[in-house]
Amino acid sequence: MAAVEREGLDGLLVAPGPDLAYLTGHAPPPLERLTMLVMAAGRDPVLVVPTLERPLAETAPGAAGLGIVDWRDGHDDPYAIVGDAVPPGRYAITDHTWASHLLALQRTSTEHTFVSAGEALPLLRAVKDEQEVERLRAAGSAADAVFAEILGLAFEGRTEREVAQDLARLLREHGHQRADFAIVGSGPNGASGHHDSGERRIAQGDAVVMDFGGVMDQYCSDITRTVFVGEPTDEQRAVYDIVREAQQSAFEAVRPGVEAQDVDRAARRVISDAGYGERFVHRTGHGIGLEVHEPPYIVEGNATALQPGMTFSDEPGIYLEGRFGVRIEDQVVVTADGAERLNEASRELTVVA
Amino acid sequence: MAAVEREGLDGLLVAPGPDLAYLTGHAPPPLERLTMLVMAAGRDPVLVVPTLERPLAETAPGAAGLGIVDWRDGHDDPYAIVGDAVPPGRYAITDHTWASHLLALQRTSTEHTFVSAGEALPLLRAVKDEQEVERLRAAGSAADAVFAEILGLAFEGRTEREVAQDLARLLREHGHQRADFAIVGSGPNGASGHHDSGERRIAQGDAVVMDFGGVMDQYCSDITRTVFVGEPTDEQRAVYDIVREAQQSAFEAVRPGVEAQDVDRAARRVISDAGYGERFVHRTGHGIGLEVHEPPYIVEGNATALQPGMTFSDEPGIYLEGRFGVRIEDQVVVTADGAERLNEASRELTVVA
Repeated sequence: MAAVEREGLDGLLVAPGPDLAYLTGHAPPPLERLTMLVMAAGRDPVLVVPTLERPLAETAPGAAGLGIVDWRDGHDDPYAIVGDAVPPGRYAITDHTWASHLLALQRTSTEHTFVSAGEALPLLRAVKDEQEVERLRAAGSAADAVFAEILGLAFEGRTEREVAQDLARLLREHGHQRADFAIVGSGPNGASGHHDSGERRIAQGDAVVMDFGGVMDQYCSDITRTVFVGEPTDEQRAVYDIVREAQQSAFEAVRPGVEAQDVDRAARRVISDAGYGERFVHRTGHGIGLEVHEPPYIVEGNATALQPGMTFSDEPGIYLEGRFGVRIEDQVVVTADGAERLNEASRELTVVA
Repeated sequence: MAAVEREGLDGLLVAPGPDLAYLTGHAPPPLERLTMLVMAAGRDPVLVVPTLERPLAETAPGAAGLGIVDWRDGHDDPYAIVGDAVPPGRYAITDHTWASHLLALQRTSTEHTFVSAGEALPLLRAVKDEQEVERLRAAGSAADAVFAEILGLAFEGRTEREVAQDLARLLREHGHQRADFAIVGSGPNGASGHHDSGERRIAQGDAVVMDFGGVMDQYCSDITRTVFVGEPTDEQRAVYDIVREAQQSAFEAVRPGVEAQDVDRAARRVISDAGYGERFVHRTGHGIGLEVHEPPYIVEGNATALQPGMTFSDEPGIYLEGRFGVRIEDQVVVTADGAERLNEASRELTVVA
């Protein structure tokens, strides 16, 4: 609430999702029935829930500090309840809130206006405490172990989907409760940044981009490595070295006080100087924590000053359409005087069978 | 677009989620980077995507009919691109769109106004074709088989979580790609409608509410059965019979032309007449398809006339706080002259060991 008041806001509305889980421990799925934590300056926080979910809300870790107000299907208007619970004013609302809920709130009262919490309060969860960093490190180490283990399995002749299924299985075997994504982009498919692993059979000469992660003990993992099936060509080797140098350069740029966009520039400079600037088609990174993508975003235009405890990805890439792609991604944490990696899987050029 | 124009709207904006998958086959995860299908009356549809995901969008089943416009991190303003792609006017926007995206669109242009697609066009996906009904039936039959199989496993002495894990495993064994939820509410926990299966050990004399489902071939399953560990008391038996009668009564009320709220009333009347009206704390049902909850909602106040091909749940319940709960849920499809159930697992009172 100190941050809310500093931004000149009158309060914060929080829908189900990582922010609600962070603030209250209540983690219902986001659905069409409105659940909303309502926080206004100078008032006690109120959690508005469907009657059906009141017993669940009452057992949430943070329930003791909350007033709980329930509404019943077909009887009560939950948007009016939220509007009545807080005075007119300007409120931040969490980014994941469904548009249908926001539109209903806007219609219910013209005296309440709303701004994106991600924009007004981007750093709500950005600085991690030691326990959070430890969980992210544990998730990262599990992902590292998955990478080490996948290297021992066959690549050539298997489909991307088969390798992706192995990555998901290994994430669970290494302690993840959920394997959320496993991108396996082989050969020309590696040039599609968010490729959907498919039926293409991996072949001799392919570069294979593997970008995978999930959730362990509530915190996310997200790692990318690119390997080569058989000896890489000179061009593949050159592109790999440029991406690796860009990733290292961004890592070395990280320290408290540096702007997020400066880290992006450090990676981009290496790739642009090598003549591939137009083929690095995305930002250098994203924050990570309870969400796999969260602030701070490591992107041109983001002047956020880094602080110790912030955690984010460092993941430059080069994408050569119709041919191949290379991306290398680690999670990093800002320390008192620099940064530490939360992934230590080998970044050496790796040839697989 | 015919429905859009009929509602006096100028177009429809579609964010990632079931509506985008339904309309284009493109199914990226919803994230902070804007992806949006932009449909305006009299114009060709345009899909706005991050550059990183352009290759993925180009391979979507519906891509041939779309213009694709990409935007690059840190260079382009995707909200301005959307605003420029459609003339000023009043647009429906899909319910799942993140509030942050809607707020950015509202800020970018005051000449575009937005209404909830779920409210303005609730029936966009509500009437299923034969192929969709067949997929829902297959998912329902798999859930039925899971229920039949769980009856052969132990209840007494095991924790709710253990039974929930068995339900999730069995859903996958019976062909589900995802097991999304498995509520096991035993004894007093059964009175919590959306109970989070926990460490409570199931004991002799418990009623056990099991509400589980997931996704098979893109379509959802969702079934609830309540079983008894050992012979039920007279009260448990009476409550079970009332819920079963209410569920049957709602089922028999379903036919084309009947209003959604009339189906709710049919179930509610049975429970109210038996003196438990205040303990039936939720609506009778929700539509089901690509989403586990979608229109039409079977709730007081919803005058939507049922049409053949609509599919929804019939799931009354009675919840006695601190003691036990009973809920029975089937999915049903409206036929030319009535309804068919998509679940056929036994609704007889069942005693387990």
